[in-house]
Amino acid sequence: MKALVYEGPGQKSWKDVPDPKLQDPRDAIVKIDTTTICGTDLHILKGDVPAVTPGRILGHEGVGTVTETGTGVNSFKVGDKVILSCVSADGSCSFCKDGLYSHCTGDEGQAGIGWIFGHLIDGTQAEYIRVPYADTSMYLLPDDVSQEHGVLLSDIFPTGFEMGVQYGQVKPGDVVAVIGAGPVGLAVISTAGLYGAAKIIAVDLDANRVEQARRFGATHGVNSGDADWREQIMAETDGWGVDVAVEAVGIPATFEMCTDIVRPGGNVANVGVHGAPVSLALDRLWIENIDISMGLVNTNTLPMLLKLIAQGKLPAEEFISHRYPLTDILEAYDTFSRAAETNALKVILTT
Amino acid sequence: MKALVYEGPGQKSWKDVPDPKLQDPRDAIVKIDTTTICGTDLHILKGDVPAVTPGRILGHEGVGTVTETGTGVNSFKVGDKVILSCVSADGSCSFCKDGLYSHCTGDEGQAGIGWIFGHLIDGTQAEYIRVPYADTSMYLLPDDVSQEHGVLLSDIFPTGFEMGVQYGQVKPGDVVAVIGAGPVGLAVISTAGLYGAAKIIAVDLDANRVEQARRFGATHGVNSGDADWREQIMAETDGWGVDVAVEAVGIPATFEMCTDIVRPGGNVANVGVHGAPVSLALDRLWIENIDISMGLVNTNTLPMLLKLIAQGKLPAEEFISHRYPLTDILEAYDTFSRAAETNALKVILTT
Repeated sequence: MKALVYEGPGQKSWKDVPDPKLQDPRDAIVKIDTTTICGTDLHILKGDVPAVTPGRILGHEGVGTVTETGTGVNSFKVGDKVILSCVSADGSCSFCKDGLYSHCTGDEGQAGIGWIFGHLIDGTQAEYIRVPYADTSMYLLPDDVSQEHGVLLSDIFPTGFEMGVQYGQVKPGDVVAVIGAGPVGLAVISTAGLYGAAKIIAVDLDANRVEQARRFGATHGVNSGDADWREQIMAETDGWGVDVAVEAVGIPATFEMCTDIVRPGGNVANVGVHGAPVSLALDRLWIENIDISMGLVNTNTLPMLLKLIAQGKLPAEEFISHRYPLTDILEAYDTFSRAAETNALKVILTT
Repeated sequence: MKALVYEGPGQKSWKDVPDPKLQDPRDAIVKIDTTTICGTDLHILKGDVPAVTPGRILGHEGVGTVTETGTGVNSFKVGDKVILSCVSADGSCSFCKDGLYSHCTGDEGQAGIGWIFGHLIDGTQAEYIRVPYADTSMYLLPDDVSQEHGVLLSDIFPTGFEMGVQYGQVKPGDVVAVIGAGPVGLAVISTAGLYGAAKIIAVDLDANRVEQARRFGATHGVNSGDADWREQIMAETDGWGVDVAVEAVGIPATFEMCTDIVRPGGNVANVGVHGAPVSLALDRLWIENIDISMGLVNTNTLPMLLKLIAQGKLPAEEFISHRYPLTDILEAYDTFSRAAETNALKVILTT
């Protein structure tokens, strides 16, 4: 089959690789129908995620068709259309029993955390994929949800909702500021209303992104390049700061913006993938009763978000900026990696 | 009356000052019967808390007798024995309604946060004190709790329990590590069992404090001066780290110890008062699903902890290391500030 292979920092190729095979009774083989590219893939290509080694097929988002199942797979059969979660979970370890699927320990030999596709094992940017723990890591795609909407549930919608809205403890009437209006920030913006946020402020350096965020549910926009960006945000609060500040960029400056605008008793929810430590002003914050959360998505809300997409309650269509056949994935990467020029959000690849 | 007055960094005096007077109908005047010294008072004396200005009477812990009440005080009368909360709260602002008494905004003109005694207004290390918002900031001392046990409820027991155990989300079966076995760390140690902690590990550089912590409920002790301190802590877990790591020192090194031993999905609860920012390793932690809490005590659990002391369920007596008459407060400060030599914990001052 053909697949997009990581060849070391800065290098990738679309090439022939062996077809995946069942390795465990709980595995399924899935033909990829739709996949997409995540900002995390770009981090990997920069060499920021050293656990990814040359030869690895990239990608952790996908919708496909089951072509083969191991003898231990009970919930799926050949021909089923499925959404692949970016987090693989055995469903039986102590972390899974606690709902922390992102930290599934798997079996001995199946090293590592729940996020393994395109990281520790081969991923979704390929014609076929082996899916471990298929019963507890795949979800049936209903007829009333399109493949390209379904693929948004592999990672981006659950990540925005779980790590931003749920971990940020958004509650009715809250003022929520989302720093970074890229795809994951927009996923936070588009789901914050589910828990009753009264004001959702999109904050970004890119004026186009700030404006665009309104289509996703932002009620206000602030350009963080403005000298008075903080005053503009504070003006939308009662003067004490925002209830929830969501970091959706992944650099120290944007994390510090969050701790600078959150009110006493408020929440900072980190969603961004960071490559460096940040400074936490505990000398000022120890007395502020704030809570700081962070983490990898569990995708435990995937079924709920799937229902909401089927009901037309989430702006799934707005996320899709470009479409390519999977065979043009190198061009798709080029488009996605120049998002500031191309206005790329999610780039859909179809076989 | 006589009072302990802050005279600027490094300077204090026990001297004559005017008696306090009612300033608002909701005020009470209380004769101090018992007070004590907090580590925060030492921070103030070093000049670490610039909001405290010369001339301020120090102290935020006290038990006393009501000598005068304003016309708006309904729940207390002259002669009542009361515990003073270190946090004054009007009970009616939006923060108070939300249970966040530590961030009570008070009235216009009554500036600042809930902790005002010995900070923004005169404190408890005096013969008399004016207590604002008396109805919502004082608690009747029952006959079966001594004054010197009662004064432990002004700050230390609620701080340890609320900021360490509750904010740390301790749950049955947890392994809890408490970094710093001074008075507040011991308050965490002595209350972690209330929520079912299975192992409570006291961690300190002082071997005497580590050993002593067992009398307060620590099940294990680790000397953080040992080269293998981390391995010793990890050996008491299932290998993934502690469920809850509590910082009870207030320096960057001990905060980083906490983020270094917490398990995926675990909690870091900061209790320490910090004078400098800390480094937060988000490059490693963004994926770890940990939660970091911090804050000033609300003392909303004071009534519950008071019942537990009355029932003999908390090791209150163990906290009292020295007793002095209030007139010897300068000697008491000397003893408390040399705790490493004197083994001072709480130094009780009585009129």
